[in-house]
Amino acid sequence: MSETWSVEEHLDDILRSVRPLEPIELQLLDAQGCVLVEDIPVPTSLPPFDNSSMDGYAVRTADVEGASEEFPAVLSVIGDVAAGAGDLPVVGPGQAARIMTGAAMPPGAEAVVPVEWTDGGLGGGPVDSMSARSASPEGAAGEVRVHRPVSAGRHVRPRGSDVRAGSLALGAGTVLGPPQVGLLAAIGRGSVRVRPRPRVVVLSTGSELVPPDEQLGSGQIYDSNSFALTAAARDAGAIAYRVGAVADDADTLRATIEDQLIRADLVVTSGGVSVGAYDVVKEVLSKIDEGSGSVEFRRLAMQPGKPQGFGLIGPDRTPLLALPGNPVSAYVSFELFVRPAVRALMGRASVRRETARARLETEEPLSSPDGKRQFLRGSYLPPAPGEARGSVRPVGGAGSHLVAALAQANVLIDVPEKTVRLAAGEEVTVVLLD
Amino acid sequence: MSETWSVEEHLDDILRSVRPLEPIELQLLDAQGCVLVEDIPVPTSLPPFDNSSMDGYAVRTADVEGASEEFPAVLSVIGDVAAGAGDLPVVGPGQAARIMTGAAMPPGAEAVVPVEWTDGGLGGGPVDSMSARSASPEGAAGEVRVHRPVSAGRHVRPRGSDVRAGSLALGAGTVLGPPQVGLLAAIGRGSVRVRPRPRVVVLSTGSELVPPDEQLGSGQIYDSNSFALTAAARDAGAIAYRVGAVADDADTLRATIEDQLIRADLVVTSGGVSVGAYDVVKEVLSKIDEGSGSVEFRRLAMQPGKPQGFGLIGPDRTPLLALPGNPVSAYVSFELFVRPAVRALMGRASVRRETARARLETEEPLSSPDGKRQFLRGSYLPPAPGEARGSVRPVGGAGSHLVAALAQANVLIDVPEKTVRLAAGEEVTVVLLD
Repeated sequence: MSETWSVEEHLDDILRSVRPLEPIELQLLDAQGCVLVEDIPVPTSLPPFDNSSMDGYAVRTADVEGASEEFPAVLSVIGDVAAGAGDLPVVGPGQAARIMTGAAMPPGAEAVVPVEWTDGGLGGGPVDSMSARSASPEGAAGEVRVHRPVSAGRHVRPRGSDVRAGSLALGAGTVLGPPQVGLLAAIGRGSVRVRPRPRVVVLSTGSELVPPDEQLGSGQIYDSNSFALTAAARDAGAIAYRVGAVADDADTLRATIEDQLIRADLVVTSGGVSVGAYDVVKEVLSKIDEGSGSVEFRRLAMQPGKPQGFGLIGPDRTPLLALPGNPVSAYVSFELFVRPAVRALMGRASVRRETARARLETEEPLSSPDGKRQFLRGSYLPPAPGEARGSVRPVGGAGSHLVAALAQANVLIDVPEKTVRLAAGEEVTVVLLD
Repeated sequence: MSETWSVEEHLDDILRSVRPLEPIELQLLDAQGCVLVEDIPVPTSLPPFDNSSMDGYAVRTADVEGASEEFPAVLSVIGDVAAGAGDLPVVGPGQAARIMTGAAMPPGAEAVVPVEWTDGGLGGGPVDSMSARSASPEGAAGEVRVHRPVSAGRHVRPRGSDVRAGSLALGAGTVLGPPQVGLLAAIGRGSVRVRPRPRVVVLSTGSELVPPDEQLGSGQIYDSNSFALTAAARDAGAIAYRVGAVADDADTLRATIEDQLIRADLVVTSGGVSVGAYDVVKEVLSKIDEGSGSVEFRRLAMQPGKPQGFGLIGPDRTPLLALPGNPVSAYVSFELFVRPAVRALMGRASVRRETARARLETEEPLSSPDGKRQFLRGSYLPPAPGEARGSVRPVGGAGSHLVAALAQANVLIDVPEKTVRLAAGEEVTVVLLD
């Protein structure tokens, strides 16, 4: 543990080892948020048939040529074409079929006259809608007066005008959001091959930890990491299991981790990774399952979050990240290392949070330790209209235990290793947390 | 249905009627993403006791005054103080207690010397860690050589330095993300009063609709809206139930909606809202449950998405939004009206998507109908470093049926009612979709 790693070296090491999960076939709504692993071709052109884009009358264009409100074309209504109808009437000369939006164009018809351009079969002036079929079944027969001409293809959506059979609907690597789910359904795909959401097991360690709502004894504090890290893992897209706090006892910890491996694609621990005599995470994980992998503990040139562990454990070489126990250190470490690992397991192309440049607002210049990359909690305001830069104000101090300030932050201010002082007005990089 | 409503008028009408859900007490991890309805005071100061920020030795400062590697202070180790330990030893003159990060400061001690500033009790040079307690129990006794002096309070986190009892941890209205969940756990709160996630029932209507993976008959298309809108409702923070497609039959539709009301905080339908003779959504909902509310159908000065319905139905006056059936119209309507309604039910202060101004990139000028607010699908590139504006390129055409183009869009281009033409290089407003 004498060598010091940079943040990027540690992250690169993690991303080199963490492979995307094996794809599985999932029902469409279960695949939401997941990454496709197959190219999806369009099996049938969309729309699959010429259909009406309006409620109106399907006509032959010659029959309505020159029609006006004063001199309407009078057509004989041969029936209704509702959306979904299979049997289509044939529209002959002098005839019209009453047609609904989305219904297939009947043979013979070349265009659709919207109902608003007709008398709706009522013999009066222009109408603004059809009467409901249930109330006026006679609307599907009789005569209709058409007040305007239409050209061929008007108010018709041609077959294949949205997507053509054989073209690519979605490519491998696409993240399935609501519009992508909709497109897959539209082309008839009810399930797809995607990388599943990773199952992340979260446990915190420390004999001082007590669950919320219990009484604190002397020397005890509440376990917050298992809650915050479980919530953060979910937020990153994982299915997260909160195991809770495990006491600083090597046998218990080893047994707990070994038990949990069966449902874990990734294990996250917090605490017990530093240089103390009771740092059992380090003690246990340096030794666990020596045949098939182990966890390496490192000092990072970073503040907060100096001590970190990473390795692959158990028969499936499950990645494990051991984070420091201080709540702010653990959260910052999650953002920098665990979140990218979760995204890598999901097969996401971009595993990192977005960053922005921002103008620092501070009364006193900030100092930062030489040779350490520092992540301060900040409150960021996006650029005002017309401006290129937002501004950021540090919240809380540099002290790594300020969990209250963390809850006010929406960014991490990323201070490079060599920077030792930052004055008001200087430009800094911020990592956007939401 | 002769009056035309603007997008803002329709949205305002919805937001005037949709009230935030009644709060309930939820376990911390179930409350993730929800809005707090109570101010949460800090019951006990954090940290709850002075504790060590390092692994090292708790000492009296006078005993290590002037200590150096050449002339170390030699102290007698009286035992270990582990994190969570209840019984604390008293550190007398000439004595030190070996102490772990997070452990309570023992009485008598004034500061902590990190283990790296000592010989770790081994009688040699400086060490870089303690030996594990399990391997070397003798480390808790004997002598330790201290190589550097410390001032009072050094490496000690004073009681209350994070948050003080009685101060406000989180205020009503706070959205509970991972750091807020962590802070609540840290102050011992295992459950909180929040507004729950709304339960949104999604159904599409249309006799032409067939579920994906089935064979299409003549005149039929796949139901995509119930999938896309369910996914979008979840994305907005709701618990969404996909009922699927209901045929254009008034009795079936009425029975289905009445059945679903028991599990709905909001009902979303698609299809059947236009001027056709088979638009049963309009037919049924204009009449449903006349005693306690009804749904009003409107024409909006908007493209796509002109026909819209909104009202409160059933004994609980459950909000219902009836969207047009075209998949792109339905999705755009969801973004503009349903998403804000879901956020309003959640009690979110900000119910709208973020917007940005962007430079339009297009080969041909775009035309837009006079008097209609148009929402085009666009592919948006955020501003390059140092620039104030990103750029946006329309994807697909204005045709409201281009579901394939929608899946390529990450913004909606919001074209004002009076704009009829947009040339390349003009500035436009975009609604950010992710």
